[in-house]
Amino acid sequence: MKITVCRKEHFNAAHRLFNPGWTAEKNELVFGKCNNPNYHGHNYELIVKLTGEPDPETGYVYDLKKLSDLIKKDVLDKLDHKNLNLDVKEFENLNPTAENIAVIIYKLLREKIENTLDIKIILYETERNFVEYPA
Amino acid sequence: MKITVCRKEHFNAAHRLFNPGWTAEKNELVFGKCNNPNYHGHNYELIVKLTGEPDPETGYVYDLKKLSDLIKKDVLDKLDHKNLNLDVKEFENLNPTAENIAVIIYKLLREKIENTLDIKIILYETERNFVEYPA
Amino acid sequence: MKITVCRKEHFNAAHRLFNPGWTAEKNELVFGKCNNPNYHGHNYELIVKLTGEPDPETGYVYDLKKLSDLIKKDVLDKLDHKNLNLDVKEFENLNPTAENIAVIIYKLLREKIENTLDIKIILYETERNFVEYPA
Amino acid sequence: MKITVCRKEHFNAAHRLFNPGWTAEKNELVFGKCNNPNYHGHNYELIVKLTGEPDPETGYVYDLKKLSDLIKKDVLDKLDHKNLNLDVKEFENLNPTAENIAVIIYKLLREKIENTLDIKIILYETERNFVEYPA
Amino acid sequence: MKITVCRKEHFNAAHRLFNPGWTAEKNELVFGKCNNPNYHGHNYELIVKLTGEPDPETGYVYDLKKLSDLIKKDVLDKLDHKNLNLDVKEFENLNPTAENIAVIIYKLLREKIENTLDIKIILYETERNFVEYPA
Amino acid sequence: MKITVCRKEHFNAAHRLFNPGWTAEKNELVFGKCNNPNYHGHNYELIVKLTGEPDPETGYVYDLKKLSDLIKKDVLDKLDHKNLNLDVKEFENLNPTAENIAVIIYKLLREKIENTLDIKIILYETERNFVEYPA
Repeated sequence: MKITVCRKEHFNAAHRLFNPGWTAEKNELVFGKCNNPNYHGHNYELIVKLTGEPDPETGYVYDLKKLSDLIKKDVLDKLDHKNLNLDVKEFENLNPTAENIAVIIYKLLREKIENTLDIKIILYETERNFVEYPA
Repeated sequence: MKITVCRKEHFNAAHRLFNPGWTAEKNELVFGKCNNPNYHGHNYELIVKLTGEPDPETGYVYDLKKLSDLIKKDVLDKLDHKNLNLDVKEFENLNPTAENIAVIIYKLLREKIENTLDIKIILYETERNFVEYPA
Repeated sequence: MKITVCRKEHFNAAHRLFNPGWTAEKNELVFGKCNNPNYHGHNYELIVKLTGEPDPETGYVYDLKKLSDLIKKDVLDKLDHKNLNLDVKEFENLNPTAENIAVIIYKLLREKIENTLDIKIILYETERNFVEYPA
Repeated sequence: MKITVCRKEHFNAAHRLFNPGWTAEKNELVFGKCNNPNYHGHNYELIVKLTGEPDPETGYVYDLKKLSDLIKKDVLDKLDHKNLNLDVKEFENLNPTAENIAVIIYKLLREKIENTLDIKIILYETERNFVEYPA
Repeated sequence: MKITVCRKEHFNAAHRLFNPGWTAEKNELVFGKCNNPNYHGHNYELIVKLTGEPDPETGYVYDLKKLSDLIKKDVLDKLDHKNLNLDVKEFENLNPTAENIAVIIYKLLREKIENTLDIKIILYETERNFVEYPA
Repeated sequence: MKITVCRKEHFNAAHRLFNPGWTAEKNELVFGKCNNPNYHGHNYELIVKLTGEPDPETGYVYDLKKLSDLIKKDVLDKLDHKNLNLDVKEFENLNPTAENIAVIIYKLLREKIENTLDIKIILYETERNFVEYPA
C-alpha cells in the first residue's frame, strides 16, 4: 500500500543561462533574455514527493516536518538568496536550467533519504514554466 | 484511449495526531504541535481523479457534476465540519494523518464507483503538505 | 535520464454540450446547464508536458519559449476567444467536453513535436474540473 | 468599529463585446477578439464585500452562509451558464464589459442588503483582468 | 509619500462558534455546522498591512523579515495548532468568528508596532470567506 | 460613478539590497541574505489599478489590452530579465526595495496615462511579501 507524501518549499535566486563553449551570438540566439550577463532571477517553488509504505505506528510515510527541515538544511541553505552561477559549486560547470536544478536537488536529497522511499522533484521556475524529475 | 477526469472539493475539520499505545511524552516527541489534546484543524482540499475510457455518446469519462454530488454525499457529509477523532467512526482506532484520511476516502469512493474506473485521491492538509493515494 | 518540462497557457472560449442525435429533453437531462442553446463559456487553463532527455549542450529538454510559441500558433489561435461549436472545425461533429478538447489539443501538438518526446495534456475547464490525456 | 466581510463565488458565462450603434469595422477595431459574433466566454470570479458593525450577540457582521445563498439566488441564478447578451435582460441594451457586469451585480445586491452595510464588488474576468465597484 | 507593506502568514486552529447565553437550538439555528460541540478547524491565512513613510536610508517602510518574526512571536505562537475556544484566553468570553479573530490580532500587533504606522488585518478563514479590519 | 480596472503582469529580475554609504557589516546586519553581493532574484507580480469613469460608448474605464501593452512597453521592457542594480538607470542611486520599485513603476506610468485616471501599484516580491503605492 504505497502512498506519496509531498512538501512544498520555495527559494529565491539569481541565474544566467549560457554555454561557455559558445560565442556570445549563439548564446544570445539560444537563450535570449535568459542570457543577460548581469543575471536575472526567480522565486522558485519546489515540491519534493516521497513514495513508500506508511509506518503503522505513526500513520506517516515520512514526517513532513522532518522533510521540511531536511530540505531547508540540504537544499535551501545552498540555493536560497544565491547567485546559482557564482555561489553554488554544483553549477560551476553546469548550466542552471530548471532541468539541471531539479536533478541537482534530487541528488542532494537522494543521499539523505533512505532507499525504501522513491523521490520525485517538481520545480517551478515561474508559475507557467516547471519541470519534473524523474519523469 | 484512457483519459483522467478530476474534481476538486474541500472540507474543514479538527483533528489530533497521537498513538494511544504511547506515553504522552512519546506522542509529544513524535507529533509535536499536532498532538495538542484540545485539537487543531485544517481546510482540507480534496482532488478525486477517475481514469477510464470516454463514453462516445456523451464525450464524458464520468459526469463531474455526478462525481461532485457523490463526493458530497459519501465523503463530505461524513468529514466536513467534524472532529475526525471524535465524530468519524473510521478514525476510532486509526490516527487521522493525511495518509490515513486519503486511504479512507479512497475506500468510501471505491464502493460507489464502477470498477472500470481507476480512482486516485490527492489530499492537501495545507497548501504545503499533501498526499497522493495510490502512489 | 528522462525529465518532464511543462508550460501553462490559457484561452477563453464559449461552448455548448449536446448530442445532436438526442432529443432536447435527453440533452437537458444529461448535460443540464451546460446544454444552454445560447452557449456559456470558460477560461481554460492548459498545461502541456513534454518528457524526454535533456540536450547536454543547452540543459533543455525543450525550449519552453519555443513550446509557448508553438502552443500559441497551433492551439490558441484556433481556440482562443472562439465559440468551440461554431468556429472550430474539429468540433463540428464532436461534443466539446473537456475530455474531447484535451484529445484535440494533443493531436494538434503531436503533429508538430518530434516523436522522441512524450506529450501529456492537462486542461482545466474550471479551477475544480480538469482532465488529463493520456491518462 | 467597522469590519469588512467578504465572500467569493464564481460563475461561467458567454458574452460578446460590441456597440450596436457602430459599424462592424469600428467594433472590430475597438473590441478586437472580444467582438467575435459567435461569442466567447469566461469563468468569472466574484467577491462581494460588506462593511458594517459586528453584531455583539453573534460576532458576525453578516452571516457569510446567508450572503452566499443570497448571491446564488439573486446573482448566480441569473448569470451562471448563461449567454450574457442573449439570456440576461439587464444586458439587452448594455455592453457586458466587466465594468458593467460589476455595476449590475452591485444593483442586484443593493436591493436585498440593508443600507447599514456598504457593498463592494470585485469581479475577475480572467486571473489577470479584474474590476472593482465602487472604486 | 505613504506606502503600504504587507506580509502573509498562516496558522491552523480548531474552533467552535456559539453563544453561551443561548439555547443549543438557537446556537444550532444560527451557527449551523460551525456549532459542532466537538469543534472543527481551518487553515487561516493572515495578511498584515502596515502603512507609513519609507525610511530614506533603507528604502523600507518596515523590514518584512522583522514583521514576520513579530507576527510569529506575538500572534502565531498564541494561535497556531491551538483550539481557539479552549487554549486562547482572549476567546474565553468572545466567540471566535473571523471578525473577532481579526480584531484580536490587530490589538496584539498594535501594542508592538509604532503609532506612525497604520495597521490593517486581512484574515482568510477559507479561500472563499475572509474579513478585513479596520474596514 | 467611479470604477477601478486592474491588470496583472509579471517580470523576473535580479537585485541586491544595500546602502553604499554603509559598511559591509551594517549592510549585512540590516539587509541579511538580501545583501548577497552576487545578487539574488524574484518573479515579481505587478498589478496596475486605474480608477475613473467608464466611457458610455464602450463600457470601458480603460481598455485592459491597451493597459497591458503600455505596461509591457514602458515597464516590463525596462525591468524584465534585468539586474535592477546594474541594468536600470532609475536604481543607480536608489535601493531596489519593493517599495522603491513600486514608486518607480508608478512614475513611469503616470507620465503615460491621462490625469483623469488615478493609478495604484501593487507589487508582489514573493507570494508572502508585497507593497502598495500610493497607500
